[in-house]
Amino acid sequence: MSDSAAVYHATATAPVNIAVIKYWGKTSTKLNTPTNSSLSVTLSQDDLRTLTTASCSAQFQADALWLNGAPHDVSNVRSQACFAELRALRKAKEDRDPSLPPLSSYKLHLVSENNFPTAAGLASSAAGFAAFVRAIADLYDLEETPTELSRIARQGSGSACRSLFGGYVAWEKGSRDDGKDSIAVQVAPESHWPTMRAAILVISDAKKGVSSTAGMQSTVATSTLFPNRANVVVPARMEAMKKAIAEKDFETFADLTMADSNSFHAVCLDTVPPIFYMNDTSRSAVRIVEEMNRCAGENIAAYTFDAGPNAVIYYEEPAQDIVLGVLKKAMPAAIGWSDKYSKIEAKLPDGFNGTLLGPLEFGVSRIILTSVGSGPLKVSKVHALIDQEGNPKSTTK
Amino acid sequence: MSDSAAVYHATATAPVNIAVIKYWGKTSTKLNTPTNSSLSVTLSQDDLRTLTTASCSAQFQADALWLNGAPHDVSNVRSQACFAELRALRKAKEDRDPSLPPLSSYKLHLVSENNFPTAAGLASSAAGFAAFVRAIADLYDLEETPTELSRIARQGSGSACRSLFGGYVAWEKGSRDDGKDSIAVQVAPESHWPTMRAAILVISDAKKGVSSTAGMQSTVATSTLFPNRANVVVPARMEAMKKAIAEKDFETFADLTMADSNSFHAVCLDTVPPIFYMNDTSRSAVRIVEEMNRCAGENIAAYTFDAGPNAVIYYEEPAQDIVLGVLKKAMPAAIGWSDKYSKIEAKLPDGFNGTLLGPLEFGVSRIILTSVGSGPLKVSKVHALIDQEGNPKSTTK
Repeated sequence: MSDSAAVYHATATAPVNIAVIKYWGKTSTKLNTPTNSSLSVTLSQDDLRTLTTASCSAQFQADALWLNGAPHDVSNVRSQACFAELRALRKAKEDRDPSLPPLSSYKLHLVSENNFPTAAGLASSAAGFAAFVRAIADLYDLEETPTELSRIARQGSGSACRSLFGGYVAWEKGSRDDGKDSIAVQVAPESHWPTMRAAILVISDAKKGVSSTAGMQSTVATSTLFPNRANVVVPARMEAMKKAIAEKDFETFADLTMADSNSFHAVCLDTVPPIFYMNDTSRSAVRIVEEMNRCAGENIAAYTFDAGPNAVIYYEEPAQDIVLGVLKKAMPAAIGWSDKYSKIEAKLPDGFNGTLLGPLEFGVSRIILTSVGSGPLKVSKVHALIDQEGNPKSTTK
Repeated sequence: MSDSAAVYHATATAPVNIAVIKYWGKTSTKLNTPTNSSLSVTLSQDDLRTLTTASCSAQFQADALWLNGAPHDVSNVRSQACFAELRALRKAKEDRDPSLPPLSSYKLHLVSENNFPTAAGLASSAAGFAAFVRAIADLYDLEETPTELSRIARQGSGSACRSLFGGYVAWEKGSRDDGKDSIAVQVAPESHWPTMRAAILVISDAKKGVSSTAGMQSTVATSTLFPNRANVVVPARMEAMKKAIAEKDFETFADLTMADSNSFHAVCLDTVPPIFYMNDTSRSAVRIVEEMNRCAGENIAAYTFDAGPNAVIYYEEPAQDIVLGVLKKAMPAAIGWSDKYSKIEAKLPDGFNGTLLGPLEFGVSRIILTSVGSGPLKVSKVHALIDQEGNPKSTTK
C-alpha cells in the first residue's frame, strides 16, 4: 500500500576501517574485484563514522546525494551499480509481497555526513559507501546479511565491503568471474580483542598523491614485483594474520602489519612512474615505532600507511602510557590530546633515542586516538539528516 | 735483483661508476659475490676519481693506508683479501723469474686521495678499491687483464670491480661457488656513446642511512619481494640494457634505469625493518625528471639513486640545454654551475609545471656535471703521493 506523498527514510552509520593486510590492485575494474584478499580493523564510530540518511518518495525527481552539505554526483558507475543492486533486491521483495510500497521504483535522496574533518585526508569512501548501502538496505527493509550487502558495497568502493562489520574483517577476493564470491566476512568481533587501540597521525603533504583507483591499476600494469606480492606473499600473510588475531598475538600482528604496509608501498614505488605516498614525516613515524619496540624488547606498537602520508599506529591498552607518552613528547601541540588523553604524560622510555622525534612535531597536525568498534548501526529517525520534503536539513552547510 | 733500501712505487687513478642496473644482495659475504648481475656507467675522472700511490719496500714495517690524509685500518678482511690475491700473483711472477725483486714479500704503503668532497656522500669505495688494486698491480708489473683484476677488486668492494673499466660495464654474477667467474666485463667503451652525460644532485640528509653492506644482507634475509627481483626481474633487464646500450637507444636506457632504481628502493622498503635511502628531495628530483620527459614527449633524462638520497641524472648532450636549464632554474644557488656550465640559461620548457621545483632549491647543495669516462689510468711517478721514504707527502693533510 503506497502513499504517493510519503517520504520514506532510514538512517545508519558506518565505520572507517584501516587494513593491516592491504588491498591494492583489481582483477576487474568493472566489478571492483581485488587481486588479493585483505584484512582490516574497524575503528570506533565514536571517533570516526559516516552518518547517512537514505530516503525515497514517489515525488522525488532524480537520485541525489549530499555529502557534508554539498551536492555530489551519483551518475558514476560505482554509485549506479549500488543503486541497481539494492533496487533489484527490493523489487524481488515487492514481487513476493505486493502489499509493500513500491520503493524500488522511487528516486532516492541520500544525505551523508562525516564526524571527522575531510582535511584529515582519511579515506572516507569506505565508510561512505558502507553507510550508503546500509541505509538504503534499511530503508528497503532488506533481510540480506552484512556479507551479502558487502558484495554490493564492494562495487561502490572496494574497501567499503569491510566497513559492513565491526572488529576484524577479511575481504576474501573470491574466484568467480562474476565477482559474487568477492565478499567481506568477520574474522573476529570487536569484543574478541578489547585491548586493541589505534592512534592516527594526520600528516600533511604538499603534494597530492595519485588516487588509489588510478594508482593501483598502474601498479598492476607495470610493477614487476607486484604479481609475487598478490599471488604469493599476501595469501600467506592472510592466514598468518587470521591466526594472530585468533590468538590475540600482538607480536605477530605487529610484524605482519608493518611488513604488509611496507610491501604495499614497495610495489607502489616499483610502479612506472613510481607512486609515493609516504613522505619524510611518515618515515619518522616508522622510526619512532621501531624505537618504541626496541626499547620495550618486543612489539608494543605497529605502524601502517594507506594511500597517503598518515600513519595509523596500533597498540594494546596496557602499553598506552608508553606509546602515547612518546607520541605526546614528539608532538605536544597536535590537535587531539584532549579529554581522557590530556592526562597522558609526555615522556620517553629509558634509552629512547630522542633525536628521532624532531620531524614529527611540525609534520603532524592532528592525532586521533581511537579503538576498535562495531559495524554499521541503525540510527533513530529523529536523527535523520533529511526534512519532511526529502531535502537535506538546514543543519548541513 | 733487489735493493734493500729501495722504495718501489706506482700511481694510478680509478673512476666512480654509477649503476643503472643495481647491485643489491650477496650470495656470499666472504667472497662478495652478488645475488644478481649489475651494469654501470663509468663517470669521467676529470670530475670524480681516486688517485692512489702503492709502494713497497723491504724497510716498511707494516701494511698501511692513508686516505685523504688520514691513516686507515687495513686489517679488515676486505683489504686483506686484496693484498693476499695480488701478492700471490706477484709471487708466481717472481717464481717464474727469480731475477725480479721480491716485492711480494715487502709490506705495502698506500696513499689515496679523492678529487671530490667526501661530504658529497658519493660512494667512494668503488673508485677506492679499484685504484688500490690497479696501483698495486702496476707496482707488481702484473700482466693480468682488467677482468682478471676485477675478480680481486670485487673482494674489496663489490661494485669496485666495475671501476676497472671505462664506458659501460657489466658485473656478471657468475655461478661458481669459489666466485672466480664473478667478474666485470666492458659492454661498450666510453667512445661508443659519446653524447652520454650525467648530473649528480648532492642531496643532504639529516639521517644517516644504513650502510649498504648491512642493508643488502638484511634485504636478502627478510624481503619477500627480493627473490623475484634478483632471479627474474634483473636478468631480463640486464639483457635489455645491453641491447639498449649497443643501439644507443636512450628511450629504453632511461626506462630501464629508472625502473631498476625504483625496484632496488622498493626491495629496500620491503626489508624488515624497512630501509629508506630516498627522501622528499630525492622524490622531487624524480618528479622533475618525469616532467622534463613529459614536456619533451620522450625520455630526455633518467634518474637513478644509490644507497643514499643523491640523484644521478643521465641525459644526452643534445638535450643539455633543456635538462640543465630546468635544473639551474630549480637550484640556481647550488655549487657547481661554474666554468662551461655558467652559460646554461635557467629556464623551463613550455608547459613545465613549475610548482614541482620548490623542494630542490634547499635540498640540493651541489651539482656535479660530468660525462662518461675511461677506466683506471697510470699516472707519472712525479705525481706520486709518497715521498722517498715511503710516507705520505706533506701535501696531504
